[in-house]
Amino acid sequence: MDKNVQTILGCDAAYEQADIVIFGAPFDGTASFRPGSRFAPNAIRTDSVGLETYSPYQDRDLSKSRICDIGDLEFPFGNSEKVLSLIETTAAEISGDGKIPVLIGGEHLVTLGAVSALLTVYPDLHVIQFDAHTDLRDTYLGEKLSHATVMRRIWEKIGDGKLCQFGIRSGEKEEFAFAKEHTRIHPFDLSAFAGAIDSLKGKPVYFSLDLDVLDPAVLPGTGTPEPGGVSFAELLHAIIKLRELNIVGCDINELSPIYDMSGASTAAACKIMRELLLTLKGE
Amino acid sequence: MDKNVQTILGCDAAYEQADIVIFGAPFDGTASFRPGSRFAPNAIRTDSVGLETYSPYQDRDLSKSRICDIGDLEFPFGNSEKVLSLIETTAAEISGDGKIPVLIGGEHLVTLGAVSALLTVYPDLHVIQFDAHTDLRDTYLGEKLSHATVMRRIWEKIGDGKLCQFGIRSGEKEEFAFAKEHTRIHPFDLSAFAGAIDSLKGKPVYFSLDLDVLDPAVLPGTGTPEPGGVSFAELLHAIIKLRELNIVGCDINELSPIYDMSGASTAAACKIMRELLLTLKGE
Amino acid sequence: MDKNVQTILGCDAAYEQADIVIFGAPFDGTASFRPGSRFAPNAIRTDSVGLETYSPYQDRDLSKSRICDIGDLEFPFGNSEKVLSLIETTAAEISGDGKIPVLIGGEHLVTLGAVSALLTVYPDLHVIQFDAHTDLRDTYLGEKLSHATVMRRIWEKIGDGKLCQFGIRSGEKEEFAFAKEHTRIHPFDLSAFAGAIDSLKGKPVYFSLDLDVLDPAVLPGTGTPEPGGVSFAELLHAIIKLRELNIVGCDINELSPIYDMSGASTAAACKIMRELLLTLKGE
Amino acid sequence: MDKNVQTILGCDAAYEQADIVIFGAPFDGTASFRPGSRFAPNAIRTDSVGLETYSPYQDRDLSKSRICDIGDLEFPFGNSEKVLSLIETTAAEISGDGKIPVLIGGEHLVTLGAVSALLTVYPDLHVIQFDAHTDLRDTYLGEKLSHATVMRRIWEKIGDGKLCQFGIRSGEKEEFAFAKEHTRIHPFDLSAFAGAIDSLKGKPVYFSLDLDVLDPAVLPGTGTPEPGGVSFAELLHAIIKLRELNIVGCDINELSPIYDMSGASTAAACKIMRELLLTLKGE
Amino acid sequence: MDKNVQTILGCDAAYEQADIVIFGAPFDGTASFRPGSRFAPNAIRTDSVGLETYSPYQDRDLSKSRICDIGDLEFPFGNSEKVLSLIETTAAEISGDGKIPVLIGGEHLVTLGAVSALLTVYPDLHVIQFDAHTDLRDTYLGEKLSHATVMRRIWEKIGDGKLCQFGIRSGEKEEFAFAKEHTRIHPFDLSAFAGAIDSLKGKPVYFSLDLDVLDPAVLPGTGTPEPGGVSFAELLHAIIKLRELNIVGCDINELSPIYDMSGASTAAACKIMRELLLTLKGE
Amino acid sequence: MDKNVQTILGCDAAYEQADIVIFGAPFDGTASFRPGSRFAPNAIRTDSVGLETYSPYQDRDLSKSRICDIGDLEFPFGNSEKVLSLIETTAAEISGDGKIPVLIGGEHLVTLGAVSALLTVYPDLHVIQFDAHTDLRDTYLGEKLSHATVMRRIWEKIGDGKLCQFGIRSGEKEEFAFAKEHTRIHPFDLSAFAGAIDSLKGKPVYFSLDLDVLDPAVLPGTGTPEPGGVSFAELLHAIIKLRELNIVGCDINELSPIYDMSGASTAAACKIMRELLLTLKGE
Repeated sequence: MDKNVQTILGCDAAYEQADIVIFGAPFDGTASFRPGSRFAPNAIRTDSVGLETYSPYQDRDLSKSRICDIGDLEFPFGNSEKVLSLIETTAAEISGDGKIPVLIGGEHLVTLGAVSALLTVYPDLHVIQFDAHTDLRDTYLGEKLSHATVMRRIWEKIGDGKLCQFGIRSGEKEEFAFAKEHTRIHPFDLSAFAGAIDSLKGKPVYFSLDLDVLDPAVLPGTGTPEPGGVSFAELLHAIIKLRELNIVGCDINELSPIYDMSGASTAAACKIMRELLLTLKGE
Repeated sequence: MDKNVQTILGCDAAYEQADIVIFGAPFDGTASFRPGSRFAPNAIRTDSVGLETYSPYQDRDLSKSRICDIGDLEFPFGNSEKVLSLIETTAAEISGDGKIPVLIGGEHLVTLGAVSALLTVYPDLHVIQFDAHTDLRDTYLGEKLSHATVMRRIWEKIGDGKLCQFGIRSGEKEEFAFAKEHTRIHPFDLSAFAGAIDSLKGKPVYFSLDLDVLDPAVLPGTGTPEPGGVSFAELLHAIIKLRELNIVGCDINELSPIYDMSGASTAAACKIMRELLLTLKGE
Repeated sequence: MDKNVQTILGCDAAYEQADIVIFGAPFDGTASFRPGSRFAPNAIRTDSVGLETYSPYQDRDLSKSRICDIGDLEFPFGNSEKVLSLIETTAAEISGDGKIPVLIGGEHLVTLGAVSALLTVYPDLHVIQFDAHTDLRDTYLGEKLSHATVMRRIWEKIGDGKLCQFGIRSGEKEEFAFAKEHTRIHPFDLSAFAGAIDSLKGKPVYFSLDLDVLDPAVLPGTGTPEPGGVSFAELLHAIIKLRELNIVGCDINELSPIYDMSGASTAAACKIMRELLLTLKGE
Repeated sequence: MDKNVQTILGCDAAYEQADIVIFGAPFDGTASFRPGSRFAPNAIRTDSVGLETYSPYQDRDLSKSRICDIGDLEFPFGNSEKVLSLIETTAAEISGDGKIPVLIGGEHLVTLGAVSALLTVYPDLHVIQFDAHTDLRDTYLGEKLSHATVMRRIWEKIGDGKLCQFGIRSGEKEEFAFAKEHTRIHPFDLSAFAGAIDSLKGKPVYFSLDLDVLDPAVLPGTGTPEPGGVSFAELLHAIIKLRELNIVGCDINELSPIYDMSGASTAAACKIMRELLLTLKGE
Repeated sequence: MDKNVQTILGCDAAYEQADIVIFGAPFDGTASFRPGSRFAPNAIRTDSVGLETYSPYQDRDLSKSRICDIGDLEFPFGNSEKVLSLIETTAAEISGDGKIPVLIGGEHLVTLGAVSALLTVYPDLHVIQFDAHTDLRDTYLGEKLSHATVMRRIWEKIGDGKLCQFGIRSGEKEEFAFAKEHTRIHPFDLSAFAGAIDSLKGKPVYFSLDLDVLDPAVLPGTGTPEPGGVSFAELLHAIIKLRELNIVGCDINELSPIYDMSGASTAAACKIMRELLLTLKGE
Repeated sequence: MDKNVQTILGCDAAYEQADIVIFGAPFDGTASFRPGSRFAPNAIRTDSVGLETYSPYQDRDLSKSRICDIGDLEFPFGNSEKVLSLIETTAAEISGDGKIPVLIGGEHLVTLGAVSALLTVYPDLHVIQFDAHTDLRDTYLGEKLSHATVMRRIWEKIGDGKLCQFGIRSGEKEEFAFAKEHTRIHPFDLSAFAGAIDSLKGKPVYFSLDLDVLDPAVLPGTGTPEPGGVSFAELLHAIIKLRELNIVGCDINELSPIYDMSGASTAAACKIMRELLLTLKGE
């Protein structure tokens, strides 16, 4: 008798056959306001069951892709370094096997593990960040490893001009000043994204989506809702543009499903996940 | 001593005096993802109590209309055929008495009962569907009668070119292909609606509003929230255009109030209900 | 790379090796008041992850058992007969393979499918029902197949004196009269259970647990909460007594997790599940 | 075509034929901690639809009673005096017509209106109060009319020794001192109730049930949950004892359904309502 | 050892040093549909802790301002007149000390107290109202003092042409007629605000923000959600324009946090609060 | 103008005058199932405002005590060691000033900080733990510092026979075995507590209350609800017995208010807090 196993968007390819490998990183240990993003991977797995694999936006169908969902990593709680190390090892193995790692957070700090892994393979790695927050503090409450410092840590690794930030609408004065000098920051919305695409073509790109870039009207279920965000359509069309780039890894993070009992936030994450996967499938 | 009875929007005309007759169809038996639309008619009845009868959008007042709310039908659970038969009988009686039936679902399948009833009176019946989903599958999980097949069943009854679909943004590849051939489909939003009005003038029209055509930001309380929907203003202005048509029956369905504890979804349904009733009252 | 698959209480034996086989039956199609029990199997799967496999009550450990969770059956919505047929087929196959089927509902109607399957193997099957409701109506809203009629249907199959009902505190006058004549009914609590055990020893017994036998203080997350139910301790100790019987199949049903956002209802179901499985593991 | 109107527990007798008349008093204007009891009458009306009219506890059936639910009174918000005056007028009319008024609050202050009305008919009126709180402050935040002063106001009208308080477990030191002198107070539980019955036999009795006498485990949906309350069984059996008394009016108050999304609180209120009505029906 | 006291947006200046003084007015006694705005000041206090003091929209930082949060007033419940009197006294004292009072409601009626206080200082006071509702009834359910009549009362005090209403989309026909004659009403959105600014320059202006002017997608947590409201960006940019005016007092009201468990409504209120305070800080 | 500052149970003595000092420790960084206990101190502060200071159970009044609430500590997230160090420093300073520290968690790990501080003052410190869980693992998910290991760490500091555990009903087989050898464990309920009191008289005792010792019916708002716990009355009476002991420090932890929207869990914590403080005040 066969077992009926739930996978994200029905992506049940065997690991060996897969071009793309999804894994959950249910970590929210540095969340300063409201934890809960640890529940995101499982919520996406459960609620994506009924979603159509066909996208009328891209006229593409996931059923044509070979994608493997290996489930969630198991983390020690309260130890950010070990968590990052586990993520890095997993992403490195997937990438080493010639597959694209797709990470579902968890909080935004998890991105650091994946970027660290890919940077050893792609020394010229560029990072696109869609986010409400700069995440550029040097330390947060005395800590170097935090959802609020993750992009500062990544900048330290990839260097000036390689971090492209879009939709940012919150941060300290110092963070905006830092960004002006060291990153390519485009505040408030994604309108500058189409224009920025050209300069990234041909380069290895990691795409990190902090779902709080969306307006809380669309996605209230997140740790730190920031009113004034982008619409679903704006995000959707930006993501479809990723088809023009060489995405070598990506993540979706900061969904906190317990804060939106309506399920609309998880539904938005599921659909964005589908569209993102469909941009990858081209290769 | 008088009894104080709650009715939708205070519509308490006697049946005999009424031009318009509202009834609830609290059925959600084929809901595949999340049931709960059965609670919609009562929620609308309760929460519409305080809503003004005056619309500043149309400069019309419901207190001028003669509308009767006869309450909810009582359904056997788990028997879709009997449910549809009860709806058909009720709609037929109302229509036979020269009144316009207005149905509050429940799930979208209930529309089939009302359309069946009106088709015997108006053989040239056209159907306008505002919806996030095509609802055009031939069978769903092996069943012919389902919220996911309802428009296919209706198409079988009314024939090619009479089903006008707006706002559709979800479905299987095959459904979109079917629609291209047999229905008048306008995906993603309602922008094509104004242009389509002319061809429907003078014809008997049934208007079916699946509330999930609205963006989940506006109406998270629905069985299958689909991000990327239309705004309240867009829906409002489309509905006001119905004044130019000969609406012989209509419904509002797929509100699932338990998924939106804020009450905003029910508030949106109540206001749309008011505006819809005000377009009917003209005659 | 291994996949990390979630199973109920970590029960991940291969089907072939298993003595006990769990499957989810996510059906709530005849729920008359509030649907939602369809979400129970997945909620139990998710929330049981952290529960200890060791029971200090029984001083037994699940890690010693060979149990396989095959996941959920996939049902057509709105067709009770097909659903029951699918359950019957699955339970028959499991039982035919010499394993004990353990069913997670869904609503109480699902029990009919499992009992039908086991009755062909064990013609002398007795049924123990823990429940707040008699479930003995002949028809409900005109339907023969309903959560409110399931025990009447079962009685029709197994005959007088073989249905043992405990904890019943709700029903129509006629149902209680019927029970007095045809079943062994013990209303209000489980105090009569210990005394009834002896007469069932050696017989093949199916155990059906409608979780609403528990007081809503313990388990508010159920379709029809009935105040005045039994305590967790009372249920726990009754279940441990099942070790003295020959249980050939069993189910846990009517958890509706969406109505208890605290998770306490699901936690109670998980722990009862563990204790129930530990009574089976002995043989 | 008949209208399908929802009434409490299906009590739809005509006013003229009725022995008992229920009305809702949706007032919560002096709630100091959390308002919301205004929603109670409608919640009870909606959720009592499916409750059996038969009580296995009393072996009586509501369908044998002649009870009329006249719906909710309409109140001015923010004016306690007018609200009380409306309640008094209504209760007086019902009582004057030879019927028993049954009031559904709203907050506890509403009791004052009903008691005032009945006191003019029954000068020797005694009042039984089941409550977590003494409600005996002279003023609360400077106000004479408040849920926290209602029993002090009633004591001023009926005099020493006629107010019997049970289940009280919260109050200021001064309130307990006052009670010791002027009322018959039995703190913490209902164990003294059976013994107190005898002294009340033959007298006209008003019964006021503040549902927060129940433990919040049973009824979390109330304005001021007070842990350590009585169980459902304890309340149930006390209420059944009311059959021995001459109840000339009664109320159930302080259900605040919005604070218990599980519906268990409302379910408890509905069942207590049924049992209470069945004690009245005898005469 | 220092006490760690929570204040709104960290505004912890001493009263004597402050230019701006915030106080909470947790009153919702005339709420006709759903109470709960009494919880707003504390929710804003709690959830604003993590909000950055820097605004990228205005490039200003709250840490440069001298603002004192004196906490909440303590009100008698059920006595609207006393509540208004307490607000008036407090606002008068603050204004008398040469500071700007900033009021956090509570329901909209609280504005009347603040306006009354400021009118004695500024006889030429103009009032800007952002709101979904006209609030211009003469009486509501028989009462003169109500959230639904507050602007009528204010108009009586300040006279014709001094009340500027924006975003209004709900009211009775008579209210709109009254507005046309006596106020400067701009229905549906804030598009007319920029144009109206000029005529208010140099005058003493009180700014009253009923948060339900926002679309419920942005702020579902309010007593009476009215679909079709303004976006966060629209409100934000209107508020920034207040920098051009002489604001002598202001309030934010009608947040009802319990109706939005996601916290997004409170987050919107916190950010609007920050932006509003930053427009005041200039002087 | 005075500021109106919210404190726990109105405990607003100056630090210098106080005998008892309360502080919040909002840390939940090692929560493995569901985080959220970080919100407990503030929830208790907010909801205890209306609670009477008088206890009818003890006939004592908090207004007679000198207690100071210094607010919450500010923690770095994701660094358990620093958090514990901050707690230890604070508790040491309070104890050094001759006052009793009372800690509000946060998760159970916070107890380790307080015990470490007091152990340097009272080398013979004994610890009473009321809890559903043993918390005796050596490591949890590879970590030494965790809510699941905290009592093992404390045992390492205080030694055999000084840790008294009551109400334990969950743990691994190895933990129960360890307890049998090294601690004084009394599983399932508090019935053994009265008998254990004598042996602790005269010794310095730290009392640690994990609120999940309560049944989830009473306190569903906790990270890991464990059905089968003790009743409120059982806990209340055990706590009152603490009056016979020399309590030199204590804590209440693991309330997670977001999981109980009814507020009943927080109400239980507030009342237990009051009763606990009243047992301390005697000296």
